[in-house]
Amino acid sequence: MIIVLKKDIDEEKCNALREFLEKRDVKTVEVVGVDKKIIGVIGNKHNLDKDALSAFPGVERVIPILEPYKLASRKFHPTNTIINVGGVEIGGLDPVRMAGPCSVESEEQIWEIAENLSQQGVQILRGGIFKPRSSPYSFQGIGEIGLPWLRDAGKHYGMPVISEVMQINQIDLMYDFVDIFQVGARNMQNFRLLEALGKTDKPIMLKRGIAATFGEFLMSAEYILSNGNDKVILCERGIRTFVEYTRNTLDVNVIPMVKNVSHLPIIVDPSHATGRTDLITPVTLGSLIAGADGFIIEVHPRPYAALSDGAQQLTFDQFASFMEDYELIKDSLLNLRKKKFAEITENVSNSL
Amino acid sequence: MIIVLKKDIDEEKCNALREFLEKRDVKTVEVVGVDKKIIGVIGNKHNLDKDALSAFPGVERVIPILEPYKLASRKFHPTNTIINVGGVEIGGLDPVRMAGPCSVESEEQIWEIAENLSQQGVQILRGGIFKPRSSPYSFQGIGEIGLPWLRDAGKHYGMPVISEVMQINQIDLMYDFVDIFQVGARNMQNFRLLEALGKTDKPIMLKRGIAATFGEFLMSAEYILSNGNDKVILCERGIRTFVEYTRNTLDVNVIPMVKNVSHLPIIVDPSHATGRTDLITPVTLGSLIAGADGFIIEVHPRPYAALSDGAQQLTFDQFASFMEDYELIKDSLLNLRKKKFAEITENVSNSL
Amino acid sequence: MIIVLKKDIDEEKCNALREFLEKRDVKTVEVVGVDKKIIGVIGNKHNLDKDALSAFPGVERVIPILEPYKLASRKFHPTNTIINVGGVEIGGLDPVRMAGPCSVESEEQIWEIAENLSQQGVQILRGGIFKPRSSPYSFQGIGEIGLPWLRDAGKHYGMPVISEVMQINQIDLMYDFVDIFQVGARNMQNFRLLEALGKTDKPIMLKRGIAATFGEFLMSAEYILSNGNDKVILCERGIRTFVEYTRNTLDVNVIPMVKNVSHLPIIVDPSHATGRTDLITPVTLGSLIAGADGFIIEVHPRPYAALSDGAQQLTFDQFASFMEDYELIKDSLLNLRKKKFAEITENVSNSL
Amino acid sequence: MIIVLKKDIDEEKCNALREFLEKRDVKTVEVVGVDKKIIGVIGNKHNLDKDALSAFPGVERVIPILEPYKLASRKFHPTNTIINVGGVEIGGLDPVRMAGPCSVESEEQIWEIAENLSQQGVQILRGGIFKPRSSPYSFQGIGEIGLPWLRDAGKHYGMPVISEVMQINQIDLMYDFVDIFQVGARNMQNFRLLEALGKTDKPIMLKRGIAATFGEFLMSAEYILSNGNDKVILCERGIRTFVEYTRNTLDVNVIPMVKNVSHLPIIVDPSHATGRTDLITPVTLGSLIAGADGFIIEVHPRPYAALSDGAQQLTFDQFASFMEDYELIKDSLLNLRKKKFAEITENVSNSL
Repeated sequence: MIIVLKKDIDEEKCNALREFLEKRDVKTVEVVGVDKKIIGVIGNKHNLDKDALSAFPGVERVIPILEPYKLASRKFHPTNTIINVGGVEIGGLDPVRMAGPCSVESEEQIWEIAENLSQQGVQILRGGIFKPRSSPYSFQGIGEIGLPWLRDAGKHYGMPVISEVMQINQIDLMYDFVDIFQVGARNMQNFRLLEALGKTDKPIMLKRGIAATFGEFLMSAEYILSNGNDKVILCERGIRTFVEYTRNTLDVNVIPMVKNVSHLPIIVDPSHATGRTDLITPVTLGSLIAGADGFIIEVHPRPYAALSDGAQQLTFDQFASFMEDYELIKDSLLNLRKKKFAEITENVSNSL
Repeated sequence: MIIVLKKDIDEEKCNALREFLEKRDVKTVEVVGVDKKIIGVIGNKHNLDKDALSAFPGVERVIPILEPYKLASRKFHPTNTIINVGGVEIGGLDPVRMAGPCSVESEEQIWEIAENLSQQGVQILRGGIFKPRSSPYSFQGIGEIGLPWLRDAGKHYGMPVISEVMQINQIDLMYDFVDIFQVGARNMQNFRLLEALGKTDKPIMLKRGIAATFGEFLMSAEYILSNGNDKVILCERGIRTFVEYTRNTLDVNVIPMVKNVSHLPIIVDPSHATGRTDLITPVTLGSLIAGADGFIIEVHPRPYAALSDGAQQLTFDQFASFMEDYELIKDSLLNLRKKKFAEITENVSNSL
Repeated sequence: MIIVLKKDIDEEKCNALREFLEKRDVKTVEVVGVDKKIIGVIGNKHNLDKDALSAFPGVERVIPILEPYKLASRKFHPTNTIINVGGVEIGGLDPVRMAGPCSVESEEQIWEIAENLSQQGVQILRGGIFKPRSSPYSFQGIGEIGLPWLRDAGKHYGMPVISEVMQINQIDLMYDFVDIFQVGARNMQNFRLLEALGKTDKPIMLKRGIAATFGEFLMSAEYILSNGNDKVILCERGIRTFVEYTRNTLDVNVIPMVKNVSHLPIIVDPSHATGRTDLITPVTLGSLIAGADGFIIEVHPRPYAALSDGAQQLTFDQFASFMEDYELIKDSLLNLRKKKFAEITENVSNSL
Repeated sequence: MIIVLKKDIDEEKCNALREFLEKRDVKTVEVVGVDKKIIGVIGNKHNLDKDALSAFPGVERVIPILEPYKLASRKFHPTNTIINVGGVEIGGLDPVRMAGPCSVESEEQIWEIAENLSQQGVQILRGGIFKPRSSPYSFQGIGEIGLPWLRDAGKHYGMPVISEVMQINQIDLMYDFVDIFQVGARNMQNFRLLEALGKTDKPIMLKRGIAATFGEFLMSAEYILSNGNDKVILCERGIRTFVEYTRNTLDVNVIPMVKNVSHLPIIVDPSHATGRTDLITPVTLGSLIAGADGFIIEVHPRPYAALSDGAQQLTFDQFASFMEDYELIKDSLLNLRKKKFAEITENVSNSL
């Protein structure tokens, strides 16, 4: 940690600061420049609060040097985390293929979709049961009654299922019916929910908040990890920017950033990241080539009759056309991923 | 609602759309331009979902004409809402003055602060008991034990108290100890929490989410209002932008926007909107002149020893200096507010 | 164009507006809803200014239905524009490969780079001669003296060259030395420069402004096109967002958006869009798969000794490693592009 | 400057870096932490380029400690800069009042406006002659012919005039006709234009770019200052954010930020910062109370007939109503400014 002092700080304040630091059991080195004086602090950063130090009289600013995340860091866990969900690997060589409707609307609907998508190579079935909606007057999800529909349709067609959990008290309710808990973008910093999910043994797919920085994203993963659950899947679903022609802006840079500094898998949600069916194929394929460990796409047999998110759900035919393009790049994608995996293995053995 | 059709839409799709609309009991007017055909839809918008219509084959885009909020709208409630909390009016002529520490840290601390601030003219005492923190390794608030400390200190010095509620199960826990429930920016779209608060009879201060649009902000208020609680106080606390020199960007435009289209009071939180003690006085006074119905400021006797948000909390002396400047503009501010209130009264009587 | 009227507009104002519209030779259709009245306007939109109409007494807002761009639109020019620069096709099946140093620093430097990159398969050599820099105290480019160095090095190794033009008076100066004029992000809305470039016969690579909307980006292209120069190459180089871990945020969504609505080629500049050498390979390959017609990458033999943009320039070895990964996806990429081109051809013949 | 090294940097690279720094005549202090090693660099920062250092093998990141601006800094010039334009002071106690049409449209129009506004207390007359417009099909300004109209109307009513300069070759053309050159947001980083204006002796009003950081804003001022012209007026005119209900977001925080770290005057342009006539009064008054040294407001007798920016121009009556509210806060505003000025004088004498 670097502490930059104000030019005109007096000796008294300096001494008070030195004393404050000494009590926290850290070593310091002082560097006196022409215009500024700085203090380098060495030792356990968890003994010090950046914010409190910034408020010290005479301190201009405090610059952290170390990353705030620990368990989510590749330094802590050098190889890729691979999560097995009912035989499907997430974070492994083969990118994971998740798809399904925005909302489960009826038993018939989810069975129709499960049948179609399982034939198209989808491995994990998504389906919203409890839906966070901007308006209290919109459809809020089918609710509890839909949980067995989703589970049974998935089981029949050999697909583990994923669904969003919005509240702590839904965890028990959903536990026997879902294979992956999804945390939505609006709940990325619902810390008590993250802690509660950290105490379960199911994989958690954590969506990035609409305005979350990189540090905040990984620190939310850290809430789950530090509570004992190491099965965290990150998901980039677009951020909010000034851009007006898409629902959100897909931050493709974050994908290789995560792969560089973290061991956790990251997948892409192009449905929310674009909000437009005409962009889903190109940006999904691009994200996979950029390193995404899979995708989650919204599909609905009749989007115009959907109870939520109609504008961004693909029809069965559109999804089939996406899968056709996916097949075109699949071999290259696997070769690229194999090369990358081999590099990680090599780095790990070199550092031993 | 305006439906813009694709240029090459065929008659079959057009008829399917017409039929779909007819079933929803709305009237339509078709306008055929040179390049585009549009359909104007008249009737109960709640019968129609914009998203579903957008997904209709042959539809290019759907443009809503009416605002999505109802109960939060000034059309629904033309005069200003004034909320009385233990004798303090929020939304009335006199702007409300709220202050206190980011976190309640000990019984002594909150009593020391309550004593000082009550003498400085603060009307409502804030104090965090449960704290949402980006890092699982940071102080998470003193918890339940601090609730009676806060209530008793407030009561002794004649100040109602406000504190953040993060979870549904904290509502009952906090009910007897706080006079206003605060919903933090991270929970602005925690819809189940909003619904639960909508069923209580206490005022709710709803902070704007860090990336919330105007519509989303008011629709979150609508969740509380439509559940039966009409005591909603909005709070602008800064939005996330590319700007790097302040913690957030205070969106001062939103203040008169809210006053124009809604009857709800809106106050400003300059501590989070700037993150810098040196900017708090000017932007708070500016926000009040721009129409804010009050402020909430973080104050701590020794910010550098605070357990959270040290860098943005004012000392007692800094707060006193702020109040001095506040006194300088107070008369002008009241005159301006009187004029504005009179205009609203006039508009209301004219429209009768 | 749709004109939404205020609820309480009186007949007098309505008549004034009707008269105003009649004079502009457009037809109107009025639609009266429960809460609002709207007017649909049919006819030549260039007779009407959205902004002026918005200011009409009694008008609430004006919603344009047609896109503002004409010559840049795929409706105007259904097949892809392919630009030939000294034998290199831009916008054709094969993605174009541009690379070179941020700044030309010496004759030796640019010859060393040209030799290396030509062997690595680079087709077009970039090199900054006049440099826009945030600080007046930074290196402002080698200037005029470097123009023949760049041209000669390119010519010797069979590579057309591209360099940034910042001022109208540099056009003549640079004309004989460059094959493509680059317009930097900061000049995307330097309209007089765009007009002047529109009157030349050389290809123009137009970089997207750091905060440019889609409409603004294409309208800047329209300035060049409408002045007679149809050789415009668009370039996505990242936008400014709240994101802090990369210099800019690569808006990958814009790539297929451009390909859908415009006939112009679009290439990607990952050096500026990330600002980090460790992200360049994955996001460039991802952008190509998402539809980019090529890339422009900064390369320098010794980035730490570079006079500008050191942190984002690849070394020769790093570029070689990038090209290795490029080779891995090349066949898939070409297959994908062939399929896409065939679809466009089919659409065109169907619409004849 | 702080250089953070990668954990695994070897001695050879360390030595290369030490040698590199020695040659640049700076002193260094090395601090070895548990996980990282850092080097503090002391000396003339202009000998070192942050970007080049970042590219050094083994360097993780480089953190500048000193601000990049010099002449714009309050350290360099502790008292406020006050600019006198034909008897009107900008940056002095009394906030400056500028107003006028977006575009000069005819001789009659500008005389009509000048007459009205001079009677309403406006001190400086604005009027666009050359207009930057997003679309090549929009009105591009009346051009050269309007220059004497503007000058004569201003002179007759005792108001210096301000108009936007877009190109270097317009400087001579405009020189005899305007009292202040305005640099538009789109040209804030047109560095050659800034340099040329730095060589004139007229005041320059520099508008903040739509996505300009604080550092970039002041560095653009630095381009003018370092070329010899110390009469720079900054102007906040809103930034581009995700916010959708106003044309831009007025960054009110930047006003006191500028006053704290710079001696230059800063004024507010609420017309562009909101784009809505109903918000102009509250946000202008708020900005003045927050420290703005004046305002520039667009006024037009018949906005709906304006050739540009109709939706954001006030009518004469609306401006009169604004001035009424301005009068209500004027005394408080002057008292607040007097207090602030006295504090600056005191700080200066204390530091002598």
